[in-house]
Amino acid sequence: MHFGLIGLGKMGFNMRARLRDAGLEVTGYDRNPELTDVPSLAELVKALPAPRTIWVMVPAGKITDDVISELATLMDAGDLIIDGGNSRFTEDQKHGALLAEEGIGFVDCGVSGGVWGLANGYGLMAGGEKSNIDAAMPLFDALRPAGDRAESFVHVGEIGAGHYAKMVHNGIEYGLMQAYAEGYELLMAKDIIKDVPGTFAAWQKGTVVRSWLLDLLVKALEEDPALTRIAGYVDDSGEGRWTVEEAVASSVPAPAITAALFARFASRQDDSPAMKMVSALRNQFGGHATKPAKPASS
Amino acid sequence: MHFGLIGLGKMGFNMRARLRDAGLEVTGYDRNPELTDVPSLAELVKALPAPRTIWVMVPAGKITDDVISELATLMDAGDLIIDGGNSRFTEDQKHGALLAEEGIGFVDCGVSGGVWGLANGYGLMAGGEKSNIDAAMPLFDALRPAGDRAESFVHVGEIGAGHYAKMVHNGIEYGLMQAYAEGYELLMAKDIIKDVPGTFAAWQKGTVVRSWLLDLLVKALEEDPALTRIAGYVDDSGEGRWTVEEAVASSVPAPAITAALFARFASRQDDSPAMKMVSALRNQFGGHATKPAKPASS
Amino acid sequence: MHFGLIGLGKMGFNMRARLRDAGLEVTGYDRNPELTDVPSLAELVKALPAPRTIWVMVPAGKITDDVISELATLMDAGDLIIDGGNSRFTEDQKHGALLAEEGIGFVDCGVSGGVWGLANGYGLMAGGEKSNIDAAMPLFDALRPAGDRAESFVHVGEIGAGHYAKMVHNGIEYGLMQAYAEGYELLMAKDIIKDVPGTFAAWQKGTVVRSWLLDLLVKALEEDPALTRIAGYVDDSGEGRWTVEEAVASSVPAPAITAALFARFASRQDDSPAMKMVSALRNQFGGHATKPAKPASS
Amino acid sequence: MHFGLIGLGKMGFNMRARLRDAGLEVTGYDRNPELTDVPSLAELVKALPAPRTIWVMVPAGKITDDVISELATLMDAGDLIIDGGNSRFTEDQKHGALLAEEGIGFVDCGVSGGVWGLANGYGLMAGGEKSNIDAAMPLFDALRPAGDRAESFVHVGEIGAGHYAKMVHNGIEYGLMQAYAEGYELLMAKDIIKDVPGTFAAWQKGTVVRSWLLDLLVKALEEDPALTRIAGYVDDSGEGRWTVEEAVASSVPAPAITAALFARFASRQDDSPAMKMVSALRNQFGGHATKPAKPASS
Repeated sequence: MHFGLIGLGKMGFNMRARLRDAGLEVTGYDRNPELTDVPSLAELVKALPAPRTIWVMVPAGKITDDVISELATLMDAGDLIIDGGNSRFTEDQKHGALLAEEGIGFVDCGVSGGVWGLANGYGLMAGGEKSNIDAAMPLFDALRPAGDRAESFVHVGEIGAGHYAKMVHNGIEYGLMQAYAEGYELLMAKDIIKDVPGTFAAWQKGTVVRSWLLDLLVKALEEDPALTRIAGYVDDSGEGRWTVEEAVASSVPAPAITAALFARFASRQDDSPAMKMVSALRNQFGGHATKPAKPASS
Repeated sequence: MHFGLIGLGKMGFNMRARLRDAGLEVTGYDRNPELTDVPSLAELVKALPAPRTIWVMVPAGKITDDVISELATLMDAGDLIIDGGNSRFTEDQKHGALLAEEGIGFVDCGVSGGVWGLANGYGLMAGGEKSNIDAAMPLFDALRPAGDRAESFVHVGEIGAGHYAKMVHNGIEYGLMQAYAEGYELLMAKDIIKDVPGTFAAWQKGTVVRSWLLDLLVKALEEDPALTRIAGYVDDSGEGRWTVEEAVASSVPAPAITAALFARFASRQDDSPAMKMVSALRNQFGGHATKPAKPASS
Repeated sequence: MHFGLIGLGKMGFNMRARLRDAGLEVTGYDRNPELTDVPSLAELVKALPAPRTIWVMVPAGKITDDVISELATLMDAGDLIIDGGNSRFTEDQKHGALLAEEGIGFVDCGVSGGVWGLANGYGLMAGGEKSNIDAAMPLFDALRPAGDRAESFVHVGEIGAGHYAKMVHNGIEYGLMQAYAEGYELLMAKDIIKDVPGTFAAWQKGTVVRSWLLDLLVKALEEDPALTRIAGYVDDSGEGRWTVEEAVASSVPAPAITAALFARFASRQDDSPAMKMVSALRNQFGGHATKPAKPASS
Repeated sequence: MHFGLIGLGKMGFNMRARLRDAGLEVTGYDRNPELTDVPSLAELVKALPAPRTIWVMVPAGKITDDVISELATLMDAGDLIIDGGNSRFTEDQKHGALLAEEGIGFVDCGVSGGVWGLANGYGLMAGGEKSNIDAAMPLFDALRPAGDRAESFVHVGEIGAGHYAKMVHNGIEYGLMQAYAEGYELLMAKDIIKDVPGTFAAWQKGTVVRSWLLDLLVKALEEDPALTRIAGYVDDSGEGRWTVEEAVASSVPAPAITAALFARFASRQDDSPAMKMVSALRNQFGGHATKPAKPASS
């Protein structure tokens, strides 16, 4: 099988390598001339045998939108596009409809595994028509870990369902990390606890909380036992926010995942406007002293 | 009526003034010789007519404990002690039992109103036996605002019930302030909002959210419209923590009050250990960059 | 001044009465023939002197959208529409642009006060151009409580800002109610508390938590002291959800308001799917017994 | 090595089996005559060679307290007691002090692994003096999984530190389960998702959220794909509450773990008093209909 891969960044680059290791023929395209196999999207399309299959692995939002729009004009009826990025499921529904007008098939595929996917394989969640899913199965099988397909690949449902499942996966990931992080802070705060890294290490086998994230946490503490080199500043990248928005839209209480998102927001504030107000109110009614604001850095 | 008042700090000092304004005879004791009317607790007890009534208004915890223990040795059967401080209800139960052995009556009384109580009167919540409550009623009536007694005084229940109600009152206060503060931050964050102080001011009459705290919030924004002089650093003083502990003990979900308490905890952290861990984990699985820790200030 | 009012439901009906009491001439339109003053929107427009001012007070969403779209075809350049409903601020921006094409002015106005507004007056938050705000000021002055305009009316900012402020107001309202409600549950759960309604009543004067909502809470407990007649089932009506969505969009931690929204979601579930899963997991790892599901009602 | 084991319930019974499989000589005592190897604690002590080591594995609280108090009178200086139950760390500190008076050593050991520990081995976290920990190492090595000791055993710190770490472990466990459960509810609520069990199954290999709990979740959905047989009712057993109390005591924000605990509280309520109050308030200010309470079941 010979297919195209657009986007050779942190994820796509590794995926090309894994696919080639599996014996698949991959022609990659990237805007970076040092990474790309072909000079343009048009050349990529020409290079592939019909019916063509192209995996899109570029940043969600405008870039994915632009790539798919351009492919819609370059590809033919019977071809297939798979969006393996982190697009919002509503974008998939828009892209699927656009491509359907041209007779081009569309599958959305959530991909988990991060930088470890190259070696371990990726967990995959796909949405779309069964015939398109089946057509792309050699790709999925090469990307996912060896072994039982049902443990690393799922056809979740209609177009958008793959990215919806990935969004929920990432929402859960936010909650899991927050839970471990709260536990870490509790252990660090307690005087009778003498070996925090050792405690997490000892949870790797036998306990209820053992997980891949725990293994990574142990690794992080091996490298920096009290995390003295890292600031308590955490970005977020879309899926956590969408998960909370979907919780609201579906009337689903999601307090732990939302707490994780809000903790990240707070981590990025030098000074909380809300806490300024609480301090101001305590001063107003109780005469409690406020702490003066730090002079703004210039 | 002539009675004693121990503790002439921010609250007690104002209360002595309000009680004297009401025509009651008050002998006050404070460790500070510039504030006190008598040189010692023993002198205070001697100065009062039997059966004596003494209002204790000192910091909760060890100081209240010490004062009540000493009074237990100085006062007589038939006398009455009222603890008007912010003691935990479990302390009241201990003090009530101790004093009962001497035949000394005990009432716990939660007091709300802050620095405004001198002028406005205080809201009062009392716990104890009805006969003791009745005996102290002239005091309660002088301290509370004029008007219907039921709108500013309540006999909540047994010993401890007054401070329990005050604890819950303060827990609610945490939640109310947090709600206004989140709204303030939301308004401050939105570009189309041009007049945040004016918006809060306009909520003072007619709206569902009007309250005394809102009036204070408006006052705070009049003094410092963007709260530039105040740091987002908020202390807490016991009752909020006890409220969460009681929620846990009573199996009562209290997510808003707890959120308010945790927001205060976070406001006091220079750098969150939990967020360091989340950042470390994101780096481990996704290669996401961490932000380097600020050098420790020396 | 003579102007139009569309929508004579629970809110609009009272507003017509308050406006007429203030001496303003109001022609009202409602789909309900028993309430309306004119048989159609077209007749309403004809009945008003140019330049016309029409206040729209209909349910947010499609109905408001339809009414404003129809008015756009019926009204003339120089006329003015005020949306006093609970529209989302993004809808205002859309409506403002649509009407601007016809030269029709637009103001969005958040209105708070509920069923008590008829007697007390309403709190008002308006967005739009100053000239349009000024033109509508007689209306605002009649609707708001007597007294200082700045305590019940604000020109918040551009089109959409009025409803944005109202949205935040309602978000705060969710948080305030949740805080009181958690306090109520804590008091109800504690054996030593003998008089819960009396405790809330005693908070009405003097305490830090006194507010209009507290007064209503006292009234509710007077009517039904243990709320035995009311189910713990709470609807929500848009603004709470939008507030959480805006918190996410603006990266503002809003844990108390979000907790209030999620508590309402949970209140409407017969059985929580999430809690089924937690129960299933506890059974899997610890052998803890699950509780069998209730048979589905037929 | 020959030692004693007190408590042959769900956990202790399995542990005796695992220890005997490892070639250790175990004399077990249980109040249940069908399970016990000896008729009394006194007989157990007599049966063991000095210096004796006894592992206590009974319910935390009064029962553990009683057993340790009785052992204090039966055992001799130089003997060692290990509390492997779920005691609170403050209890350990009390027990350690009591036993120290008799010259009896004490180690607290948190044990994780549930019903799977028999086959998989248990994760162990111990607190106490190094000499006592070393003396008990054959026991620890037999209970934990084969392989690197540091991955399943840790000497956390002083007496109490083992159970403190276990408490935090369980707090994390609450948070992890809540995160998965929220994700489950989100997937179940979305119409485009057609295969929820398959989605979780596909996360087992390759994804960031893979874990032992996820494997159990997949197992639970294999047995009951929509959890129709299980009620959304979840108990809690101490450690979650203690974790929140310790978060409060240590000023550590722990919103996700606390959300998990509060969700369990709410799951056990037929009707929420707090939500009754919110419903009552909405009725008071907005005339919103309340839902009538269900008639109390008789």
